[in-house]
Amino acid sequence: MTTMTESMPTLEQVVTKIESVKVAKSLTWAELAEKMGQSPVWVAAALTGQCSMSEDDCAAVKDALELTDADCKVLQGYPYRGSLTQTIPSDPFVYRFYEIMQVYGMAMKEVAQEEFGDGIMSAIDFSIDVDREPDPKGDRVKITFSGKFLPYKKF
Amino acid sequence: MTTMTESMPTLEQVVTKIESVKVAKSLTWAELAEKMGQSPVWVAAALTGQCSMSEDDCAAVKDALELTDADCKVLQGYPYRGSLTQTIPSDPFVYRFYEIMQVYGMAMKEVAQEEFGDGIMSAIDFSIDVDREPDPKGDRVKITFSGKFLPYKKF
Amino acid sequence: MTTMTESMPTLEQVVTKIESVKVAKSLTWAELAEKMGQSPVWVAAALTGQCSMSEDDCAAVKDALELTDADCKVLQGYPYRGSLTQTIPSDPFVYRFYEIMQVYGMAMKEVAQEEFGDGIMSAIDFSIDVDREPDPKGDRVKITFSGKFLPYKKF
Amino acid sequence: MTTMTESMPTLEQVVTKIESVKVAKSLTWAELAEKMGQSPVWVAAALTGQCSMSEDDCAAVKDALELTDADCKVLQGYPYRGSLTQTIPSDPFVYRFYEIMQVYGMAMKEVAQEEFGDGIMSAIDFSIDVDREPDPKGDRVKITFSGKFLPYKKF
Amino acid sequence: MTTMTESMPTLEQVVTKIESVKVAKSLTWAELAEKMGQSPVWVAAALTGQCSMSEDDCAAVKDALELTDADCKVLQGYPYRGSLTQTIPSDPFVYRFYEIMQVYGMAMKEVAQEEFGDGIMSAIDFSIDVDREPDPKGDRVKITFSGKFLPYKKF
Amino acid sequence: MTTMTESMPTLEQVVTKIESVKVAKSLTWAELAEKMGQSPVWVAAALTGQCSMSEDDCAAVKDALELTDADCKVLQGYPYRGSLTQTIPSDPFVYRFYEIMQVYGMAMKEVAQEEFGDGIMSAIDFSIDVDREPDPKGDRVKITFSGKFLPYKKF
Amino acid sequence: MTTMTESMPTLEQVVTKIESVKVAKSLTWAELAEKMGQSPVWVAAALTGQCSMSEDDCAAVKDALELTDADCKVLQGYPYRGSLTQTIPSDPFVYRFYEIMQVYGMAMKEVAQEEFGDGIMSAIDFSIDVDREPDPKGDRVKITFSGKFLPYKKF
Amino acid sequence: MTTMTESMPTLEQVVTKIESVKVAKSLTWAELAEKMGQSPVWVAAALTGQCSMSEDDCAAVKDALELTDADCKVLQGYPYRGSLTQTIPSDPFVYRFYEIMQVYGMAMKEVAQEEFGDGIMSAIDFSIDVDREPDPKGDRVKITFSGKFLPYKKF
Amino acid sequence: MTTMTESMPTLEQVVTKIESVKVAKSLTWAELAEKMGQSPVWVAAALTGQCSMSEDDCAAVKDALELTDADCKVLQGYPYRGSLTQTIPSDPFVYRFYEIMQVYGMAMKEVAQEEFGDGIMSAIDFSIDVDREPDPKGDRVKITFSGKFLPYKKF
Amino acid sequence: MTTMTESMPTLEQVVTKIESVKVAKSLTWAELAEKMGQSPVWVAAALTGQCSMSEDDCAAVKDALELTDADCKVLQGYPYRGSLTQTIPSDPFVYRFYEIMQVYGMAMKEVAQEEFGDGIMSAIDFSIDVDREPDPKGDRVKITFSGKFLPYKKF
Repeated sequence: MTTMTESMPTLEQVVTKIESVKVAKSLTWAELAEKMGQSPVWVAAALTGQCSMSEDDCAAVKDALELTDADCKVLQGYPYRGSLTQTIPSDPFVYRFYEIMQVYGMAMKEVAQEEFGDGIMSAIDFSIDVDREPDPKGDRVKITFSGKFLPYKKF
Repeated sequence: MTTMTESMPTLEQVVTKIESVKVAKSLTWAELAEKMGQSPVWVAAALTGQCSMSEDDCAAVKDALELTDADCKVLQGYPYRGSLTQTIPSDPFVYRFYEIMQVYGMAMKEVAQEEFGDGIMSAIDFSIDVDREPDPKGDRVKITFSGKFLPYKKF
Repeated sequence: MTTMTESMPTLEQVVTKIESVKVAKSLTWAELAEKMGQSPVWVAAALTGQCSMSEDDCAAVKDALELTDADCKVLQGYPYRGSLTQTIPSDPFVYRFYEIMQVYGMAMKEVAQEEFGDGIMSAIDFSIDVDREPDPKGDRVKITFSGKFLPYKKF
Repeated sequence: MTTMTESMPTLEQVVTKIESVKVAKSLTWAELAEKMGQSPVWVAAALTGQCSMSEDDCAAVKDALELTDADCKVLQGYPYRGSLTQTIPSDPFVYRFYEIMQVYGMAMKEVAQEEFGDGIMSAIDFSIDVDREPDPKGDRVKITFSGKFLPYKKF
Repeated sequence: MTTMTESMPTLEQVVTKIESVKVAKSLTWAELAEKMGQSPVWVAAALTGQCSMSEDDCAAVKDALELTDADCKVLQGYPYRGSLTQTIPSDPFVYRFYEIMQVYGMAMKEVAQEEFGDGIMSAIDFSIDVDREPDPKGDRVKITFSGKFLPYKKF
Repeated sequence: MTTMTESMPTLEQVVTKIESVKVAKSLTWAELAEKMGQSPVWVAAALTGQCSMSEDDCAAVKDALELTDADCKVLQGYPYRGSLTQTIPSDPFVYRFYEIMQVYGMAMKEVAQEEFGDGIMSAIDFSIDVDREPDPKGDRVKITFSGKFLPYKKF
Repeated sequence: MTTMTESMPTLEQVVTKIESVKVAKSLTWAELAEKMGQSPVWVAAALTGQCSMSEDDCAAVKDALELTDADCKVLQGYPYRGSLTQTIPSDPFVYRFYEIMQVYGMAMKEVAQEEFGDGIMSAIDFSIDVDREPDPKGDRVKITFSGKFLPYKKF
Repeated sequence: MTTMTESMPTLEQVVTKIESVKVAKSLTWAELAEKMGQSPVWVAAALTGQCSMSEDDCAAVKDALELTDADCKVLQGYPYRGSLTQTIPSDPFVYRFYEIMQVYGMAMKEVAQEEFGDGIMSAIDFSIDVDREPDPKGDRVKITFSGKFLPYKKF
Repeated sequence: MTTMTESMPTLEQVVTKIESVKVAKSLTWAELAEKMGQSPVWVAAALTGQCSMSEDDCAAVKDALELTDADCKVLQGYPYRGSLTQTIPSDPFVYRFYEIMQVYGMAMKEVAQEEFGDGIMSAIDFSIDVDREPDPKGDRVKITFSGKFLPYKKF
Repeated sequence: MTTMTESMPTLEQVVTKIESVKVAKSLTWAELAEKMGQSPVWVAAALTGQCSMSEDDCAAVKDALELTDADCKVLQGYPYRGSLTQTIPSDPFVYRFYEIMQVYGMAMKEVAQEEFGDGIMSAIDFSIDVDREPDPKGDRVKITFSGKFLPYKKF
């Protein structure tokens, strides 16, 4: 089953390599995001195989992450998204989002639809910011979702 | 199995009644929130049985929602939280939160822990705002989570 | 727990009533759709509690389906969507859509994203047509989905 | 456990190789489909191991994909179909089909059976087209399913 | 929520009634099948809400099962099929079919597709016979499935 | 962890080898079944690791499948049965058996127990035949199960 | 939907009644078993709807349990077996059987098949005894299963 | 990541080796049990990684199974118990225990607790015997569980 | 289906009544526990149907909770334990125990078995205390489990 | 895909190495905990990849466990927590925590919230002790959880 064309790495292999280099060189997502001119959450998602990068995105971090041309080509594909192998994630940081959806999901739906009518917040035309909110009683994590409102179309 | 004490309604019965009165009188969560001096998401969550209300919270909406003393007593209990009967919710509005967790959950963890160290965003010492973000290409839903950062304790 | 305001039916009760009247009077979705000026699939979805109807939509079928004002008010709410109680539906008609997703889902993704780039077909700004395709070897069911292409936004 | 006969690759190995060559040579499903004289969705499904190819199908893409005779033999087998490892797929593109089935599955059943009587749309004597529908508000993805109507047989 | 039209029973109510009358009068599926001129398995399936009956089918058993006109109308609908509430049925009689699928499902696929090519046995254009096979070592249950072979269509 | 005794292949390795040789030499289950003097379904099940073969069974196909003595010894073990890794199989050929169980399982139970009394059809003292049933409207797959009736024992 | 024939109770209703009468009159399974001349486990299973009783079985406990003729007719049906609503039972007494299957299931298979060859212990031609085993360190529960060995049939 | 200390095999590797040697040398659990002076079920469980062995247990079978000192050390660990990868096991021999729990689990609980009071049969202070019960109608498998009765403690 | 003996309430009905009276009279578990001379966790478990009460236990709270003799008889039964309807509980208070088991379960096993040898902490001969641990940085919940160590028995 | 930077081990590889060295050198968690000055449960969790270690933590056990600098770097990352691959763990030691949550979870919630008000016990600002409680009837395992009480915040 030998192939004349040089074999491409899988996306999983590229991601494993990125994680290894990032730890070895003590790089941060913030530094990589600055190089790329994108937000840290998007960059962390893209470099762990959850988003599709442009050629320029990849070029900006190619040296830092010691990527090859083949690695970059793979990172420009359109991945099968979903970073979790469990239906309900066991990790406490990630689980809290599941808990928020369970406890407040219907309430967010009620309030948003009262304001916007029948429809949803897009998770595609969408962005996330993660910020520090200083607080004397202990700093807070502030996470902001911004998604286009998509009204249900009648047909 | 007759009881001398007058029987209390279940939380489920009180919530059904609230939903019925709210539709019949065309009340909004925003109006009820204003009466109570709390945020609409919290009020929608509390009046659908996901949060524990104080006596004053209840008094503020008692007339509007035609609640009895017994109803109020029930709303002051500590409910078993969780508003969804499906592990992965079928409703598109609510599902998008599951999708965000699947696609961006690990990236949010990476970025937040890079900033704060090992720990989580609390979902207890926590608040949610749902806002309209005007945008010429179509208004956006802006959802802001603010949760105290809780560092892992070593022991 | 008596309420001064007259109690509203639940959405489930309204849907049960609609189904009962529809069978009793031998009404078809096509007839109801014509009255409402919408497509039969949307009308069948709306009258079984999966879409939100406008006041006019409801008025158009009010007499035929013997609906009350309260019924109409309930049908104008924003329902929790999802018409199936099983994760993998047992009914052969419905299951075939699950089978199509299993067998051809990735291939549709490959082909659509090759054409459109990274993104999805919206299931919100979306319509469905169900048609008969005459065929000498046996007529065919033709189902057409049309959904706005939503490109992934970088952030 | 040495075998005299030369060992065949598994279907999984052939698919991995095809995906690797396709990326390395920047081939498209549309190009491969044209060579084979079949529709792109079917070709993408077949070359990712979801359909059985004829000898001619394979011959048409053998050089482009650098396939061996053994690879072709494997692609002509009758695969265990099902391209997803999750019961409910996490990828947003694929998930939308699950969502459509949840929200509109019963309505499509109602409308199709009203037109055709008791039976199903075949997912075997079946085809799919994926097209671009130009639209000034944003182009649309048009997906057309055509399946033979199979009436339930009484016995 | 009063309705002018007389309310129809649900399919579930009709089935419960049929089962009750059948036990009370000690009727057998074989007797009912003979009246209807169909096979006992089909009749048992239809009268428990898994198949759609014609007007004549219903007329043939109307007196015996004390059915009303409304009951018959309901039995002529197109039901949501699936008689089991468990993914893997706990009842030993029914479970054995699951076990057969687990142990011999792939072998049946191998042998049938070797004979017929790529395709399936239809479960729609399909019939079942249940017979007694006398045997000195203990009689045997003989179950015969006959389904049209449906070859996969290329597109 | 070296072992003096020659290491045995695992059952999974033997099955993979059999499948590879079978494809490479274009052998059919029918041919292998004839050599062994057993039915094709049983032979396909046994050679894919679902049944225990005797020494003679193995000897009959040893040359054709290029099996070693160690391979044969492994095939004579008592395997952990169950050929599917999914609770509900995604492959359409295999799924149809699940569908039949869902739609007609209870009806088969009703009819069989009416004839035989309380008990089950054995899936152990059991056989399967897969045959072609010629039909002008399209040939049919005929699958016959024959299992000893096992009456429930009271104790 | 009135029925001329007197309506039969459901099996569930008969079981609920039996449990109620048993508690009210402080009857034991042992006493009921003695009246019926069967073993207590079988009697407890039969009177909770897991086994089919004969007319004589029912007659023996009819007065004690205040059963009607209709109740007895229902208890003589062939029930859908399975007394648990959870896949993995939460009750510690019942769970221990699941635990034993998890920890020792494969070992019991190994030892039994070493002794008997390929086959199973029948759960149909089967009995259970529950006994007290006096022991100075604390009495023991002794549970004995006896099931006919069923050898796998080749075909 | 080189380690000065010689690497230990994993428990899984030791078990695979034991199974391989056992087949190669045609050893039986009965023979191994006799060497060890324990019961065959316990020995089969221990040598497949479900129980913790003492140094003496291991010494007794060390030569027969060609175990090294490192292998023995690993077998003396406290394993994560549970020999099945499926929630409901597909293998018919093992499944029957699940079926017995489903059909008779509640009846065994009823009878045992009637005799012993509120509590459970221990699955820790516990033993299993598997015996042949000669029977002219076909020998029977007799499986005896003996577990200490543990009464629920009030606190 | 009339019964001469007066019908008993179900355990579920008794628990619902207890919860209703407790709220109506503002009783606390602590007060009820003091009356009964047991610990509050055990009392809360028993009065919500998770433990079996003695006659004296019931008598101690009979007046306060307005229980009848029949209610007490039901509370003395041996319940099917398990207070949660979800495999993974959605309520944050209860979920944290699941999280602790996920994150620290294996570590607790390692440490306990290092100390005690192979065995388990009994959940039957077992007690729980819930206490307040004053702390200047915020009081702490202290939960103490005490269960008899049960060593695995060899057999 | 060669990388200039030396490749880092994965966390899984480091944990496997630690477990191997620990067995080979007969180290205990207690000894390792003493070197590190932390509690044995935390140390066992950290060294099996469930907690994040500081540089000093790692240095304290580096020689004993033969860790490299790269190993230590990996152990200082923020792991995806969750040590179990099963939703409901099969191992009896770990399962008992699931059982406790099922049987006493709601009772612990009732009692704790009666004392503290609406909120939870933190599983982040949290510690565990595992101790031996000598008892003439058999020593007991005492497990103490201490978690900060987190009151629900209204917003």
